[in-house]
Amino acid sequence: MAPDFYRALTDPRTVAIVGASNTPGKTTARPLGYLREHGWDGEVYPVNPTRETVLGERAWPSLSALPTIPDHVLILTGADAAVAAVRECAELGVPVATVIADGFLPTDADGRRRRTELAQIVAGSSLRLLGPSSLGIANLPRRMALTGNAAFADDSLPSGDIFVASQSGSALGALLSRGAEMGLGFASMVSTGNELDLSLGEICRSAVDDPQVAGFALFLENLTHAEDLADFARLAAERGKPVVAYKLGRSDAGARLSVSHTGALAGDDTVAEAFLTSLGIARVRTFEALLESQHLARRIPVADTPARPRVGVVSTTGGGGAMIVDALADRGAILTGPSAETAARLADLGVHTHGGALIDLTLAGTKYATIKAVLEVLLDAPEFDAVVAVPGSSARFTPEVSVAPIIECADRGTPLAAFVVPAAPDALAMLRAKGVSAFRTPESCADAIAATFARHAPVRTPVAVPPAGVEPMPLDENDSYALLEELGVEVAPREVVRLDDLPAELPIPGPVAVKLLDATVAHKSELGGVVLGVEDAPGLAAAATRIRETAEQRRPGLTVDRVLVQQMTSGVAEALIGFRRDPDVGPVVLVAAGGVLTELYRDSAVRPAPVDPATARAMIDEVIAFRAVAGYRGLPRGDLDALAHAVSAVSQLALRHPVVAEAELNPVLIRADGVVAVDAVASYYPEER
Amino acid sequence: MAPDFYRALTDPRTVAIVGASNTPGKTTARPLGYLREHGWDGEVYPVNPTRETVLGERAWPSLSALPTIPDHVLILTGADAAVAAVRECAELGVPVATVIADGFLPTDADGRRRRTELAQIVAGSSLRLLGPSSLGIANLPRRMALTGNAAFADDSLPSGDIFVASQSGSALGALLSRGAEMGLGFASMVSTGNELDLSLGEICRSAVDDPQVAGFALFLENLTHAEDLADFARLAAERGKPVVAYKLGRSDAGARLSVSHTGALAGDDTVAEAFLTSLGIARVRTFEALLESQHLARRIPVADTPARPRVGVVSTTGGGGAMIVDALADRGAILTGPSAETAARLADLGVHTHGGALIDLTLAGTKYATIKAVLEVLLDAPEFDAVVAVPGSSARFTPEVSVAPIIECADRGTPLAAFVVPAAPDALAMLRAKGVSAFRTPESCADAIAATFARHAPVRTPVAVPPAGVEPMPLDENDSYALLEELGVEVAPREVVRLDDLPAELPIPGPVAVKLLDATVAHKSELGGVVLGVEDAPGLAAAATRIRETAEQRRPGLTVDRVLVQQMTSGVAEALIGFRRDPDVGPVVLVAAGGVLTELYRDSAVRPAPVDPATARAMIDEVIAFRAVAGYRGLPRGDLDALAHAVSAVSQLALRHPVVAEAELNPVLIRADGVVAVDAVASYYPEER
Repeated sequence: MAPDFYRALTDPRTVAIVGASNTPGKTTARPLGYLREHGWDGEVYPVNPTRETVLGERAWPSLSALPTIPDHVLILTGADAAVAAVRECAELGVPVATVIADGFLPTDADGRRRRTELAQIVAGSSLRLLGPSSLGIANLPRRMALTGNAAFADDSLPSGDIFVASQSGSALGALLSRGAEMGLGFASMVSTGNELDLSLGEICRSAVDDPQVAGFALFLENLTHAEDLADFARLAAERGKPVVAYKLGRSDAGARLSVSHTGALAGDDTVAEAFLTSLGIARVRTFEALLESQHLARRIPVADTPARPRVGVVSTTGGGGAMIVDALADRGAILTGPSAETAARLADLGVHTHGGALIDLTLAGTKYATIKAVLEVLLDAPEFDAVVAVPGSSARFTPEVSVAPIIECADRGTPLAAFVVPAAPDALAMLRAKGVSAFRTPESCADAIAATFARHAPVRTPVAVPPAGVEPMPLDENDSYALLEELGVEVAPREVVRLDDLPAELPIPGPVAVKLLDATVAHKSELGGVVLGVEDAPGLAAAATRIRETAEQRRPGLTVDRVLVQQMTSGVAEALIGFRRDPDVGPVVLVAAGGVLTELYRDSAVRPAPVDPATARAMIDEVIAFRAVAGYRGLPRGDLDALAHAVSAVSQLALRHPVVAEAELNPVLIRADGVVAVDAVASYYPEER
Repeated sequence: MAPDFYRALTDPRTVAIVGASNTPGKTTARPLGYLREHGWDGEVYPVNPTRETVLGERAWPSLSALPTIPDHVLILTGADAAVAAVRECAELGVPVATVIADGFLPTDADGRRRRTELAQIVAGSSLRLLGPSSLGIANLPRRMALTGNAAFADDSLPSGDIFVASQSGSALGALLSRGAEMGLGFASMVSTGNELDLSLGEICRSAVDDPQVAGFALFLENLTHAEDLADFARLAAERGKPVVAYKLGRSDAGARLSVSHTGALAGDDTVAEAFLTSLGIARVRTFEALLESQHLARRIPVADTPARPRVGVVSTTGGGGAMIVDALADRGAILTGPSAETAARLADLGVHTHGGALIDLTLAGTKYATIKAVLEVLLDAPEFDAVVAVPGSSARFTPEVSVAPIIECADRGTPLAAFVVPAAPDALAMLRAKGVSAFRTPESCADAIAATFARHAPVRTPVAVPPAGVEPMPLDENDSYALLEELGVEVAPREVVRLDDLPAELPIPGPVAVKLLDATVAHKSELGGVVLGVEDAPGLAAAATRIRETAEQRRPGLTVDRVLVQQMTSGVAEALIGFRRDPDVGPVVLVAAGGVLTELYRDSAVRPAPVDPATARAMIDEVIAFRAVAGYRGLPRGDLDALAHAVSAVSQLALRHPVVAEAELNPVLIRADGVVAVDAVASYYPEER
């Protein structure tokens, strides 16, 4: 692979277009038209074996016939012709080719065939491939729109410093027009298509050191190449270039077909969000915040910022401020009023505050000098993690009064954003032109702040996706316990007892639970496989016999020859700890409230694994039910630090035991002192054991 | 009171402005300027005792000096001068006066004095008062802006059919400019101020029969005059004129200082939302949906619409459709694909669907005729409660292709809305000009649909606010039970036992609970006032003694002379049923999951009381925890119908026992058959007993 495809991908000097149509208006005629109409200054070679000219330009019969090897070949033909063109590109030593055609999905025989062919061609050459099924790529400062996407028909190609990568071709056009309308500009905009060769992550990583690029906006549909995305995100964080992502899939119920609670709770979107935030990516939930938040994210270094930022709000007229206070609180921000010291400074400026989170300047008069002085005081004050300025009518009629001070203060230290109350496109554009995040709605402002502060400093752990196509095999409960004990998790004392060698005394002091012990039985209770409260050896014998009879009757073919005898114990609350290897993002660990309502409430937290105890404790703090044992209404406290250590211990499966596919401890009893697991399942990849 | 103030309020022919300033730019100079600049065609009389002219117009020394009695007097002076002016208006028989001044809040002595004076003046005359602290009123078709609000400096006053009433003056300006930008227009826009005389509800009610008005947009901060709002909402629903409300206060933690869980769970915003939806008002959570949803709400009659509407989505390019699918699912809509029959009809049009909720027309070609035919099929199909059309790039470049068909189909039957993917202000304006709800963001589209379908047909029950300033007195547990039994709620068998007359046998078969019985003790357990598992009379005697000793020691001055003996029983789950009289919206009933986590999870539902069993069952369906006993994973079922009857029974307190202030049953044990309350508190207003 060529080490540096970036320039050929995003800023080629010579381009060939294969399959360019001569009929204006057709999608395949547009790219050539765009290059000319927008005034791109490179050389373009239309390739069309059936014509001498295309749209008035000299056409070439083939790529081989070109007088030069183009940097980038845009292939507009159908799928099979595209494969042939790619082959020709590879043979000629073309650095980058983009394939527009659909027809490369693995869901049908032709798709699979073509994918294999393309993969072979790429593997055997220095060619890098964008797509297939890409809508193309645009470099706006260069006025290069290498795409048939109708959205690029606009005269204005707003040039700027945001690098957009989208897994949805049509979202690209939406971002272009909305960005232009917002007064924001783009460096490159790339439609990643099927990512058969170049993944979104690899493309973005190659852009991190481009001085034209100051930040990234990603429109995501999947996390298929999670490791590349992680590499990119880590480098972007190192370079201080923020990454904001909007990802589809929040509606996926996440109720995956899984035997385990862990699988059901750690649904696709939960895992995706945990993965993205763990890499320092701001995951927004409103479409507009994807662009509107860019500048704000640039002002807040990716670090372990408080999940609940303390936000101050200052408005020049009360009403709009109240809206953003509501929206921020709804997204978990801590609405913070000025400290006594700050309030005194504001009083010196004639601004009297009442301790509330909203500082309203209306009575003090909407004067440029006042607004600026107030902003300076607030931005210097240590009690705010962020400040939102809320200009009212003045933003529309007299922006020099209420908007100019925001611009002038924006570099002062504490991150400053603006929510503009009236319709005031000029004010919004003015703010954005000067690098201030300005929001049209209270909801997108609150979303941007929440997403930006939810980021974590990226972890260095590589993404290790599980082996594909290997069905995990279950471990029995006792073996699962052995695994957990090896990790340092406390397990309730137990013994394995053979039915043909029942002991004369209970091997463990009663009362004990007697449980069916069989790796192939996922739900013991359904087979009558659990008997509680056994006090003595005769009771044990009776329970074991009953278990055997019931289980063998309910599942013909099952042979029960041993049971697990386990000490019964109690705690103040129950938890579930789960571990699994997500096929996209790799190992994740989950902690949840235990009990039957676990899946109904989805009261849980998930992170990429492994996690240290501090991170595990942060996860536990996200689970609402655990507040009941954290000192609540005089109820007994549970040892949440011990729970955190157990979560961290289980998460070590990620790297220490790559053969372990899944593990679930349910319940883990939380005691006043310590935690203990009283049931567990685990599974492994059967290549080795 | 004059029967018809509406015309004088919103469409006066003669106006006097008291306190009009001669200095252009001053707030008090603006109203006169606006009337002239916008071309209002009525007669205006500036009243200024110190000048002969104001802004070039003849000034009059006083209201009495005017040659006519003006319809409407706008009073721009400070507070005390305003009171004098209002008095003069009343004496002259002026129909309506608007007071701009602040200084009428009951939080200080001057404010209270002025309020009393104004109230007396109004009570003794036919004058109706808007405000005080109102920013004024504008009638846009008449080009009348009777306000000093800077936002009305715009040349364009977009005339239309939306009546806006706002409790926030500055929100009015925001709605004006945003509405204009959206291509929407207004009938009147009124700032209701302190609502000392004319409440928001009374104002809006007076507008319902105005043929210029087709719908209402409310910006709410409080529900102080809830009964007027209810009267208005019922009339508006009868007339088929929808009401959409955006209300601040979602951030209020709602953790009111209350002894009861009910008070904590039924926080201000929860109650507000229940109240508004019960009146058929669409309560939106995004600011833009307040206006963007108007047309959609007009197409969906207020009725008992499904809380989870079945929504179909059709896009002309895939990407944008996926965003709205996500947003809709996030707000609880059921994303619905075409039925087999509908799919067959679409196939006839060359549109092949895959059973999913998103119908993408990209492959079928973005052609006017196809889009129109597809919309007709979808809007005729019975499986959709609403359809969202999602035009892509075409909306920006060729709206005659993708936007025109939406407009043409909008009256077909099933409500149709549009989410426009690119920046396309012309397409949005085009749609709105033709009465189609068009949304700029996926989130506001989903919000509008959720809010519109969450409405209920308004109930006829009057809002009965509790007596002000009367502290409720507690009933003891036994008296609380008597009250509940009278309502038809089953209570666990119990007896009152005097400590000086302990029985020889348990009065109720054991095991029993023995409980402190004292109306003044809110939390028995804190005083050691609960002993469980008592099996016999000696045990009862011991428990009673222990309770007395512990309670009297922990609360000196308390005398324990009796205990409650109650049968212990069990159920499959616990519930909490609460009743209280909200000071704004009147009686509400609440049902929640029981147990210690109740307040942590806030897993509850609230409605204005009384409710019938069907409504109570709908409430129960909103509580997540009850799904565990509704047939879940083989767990025992609980009698949720009986719970619904109990909730309905408790809610009857609203009208049948106006002397009862609050009641809380916690826990109510849900059994396989029936429900039974095993603890209860209640309180009453002590005027009568």
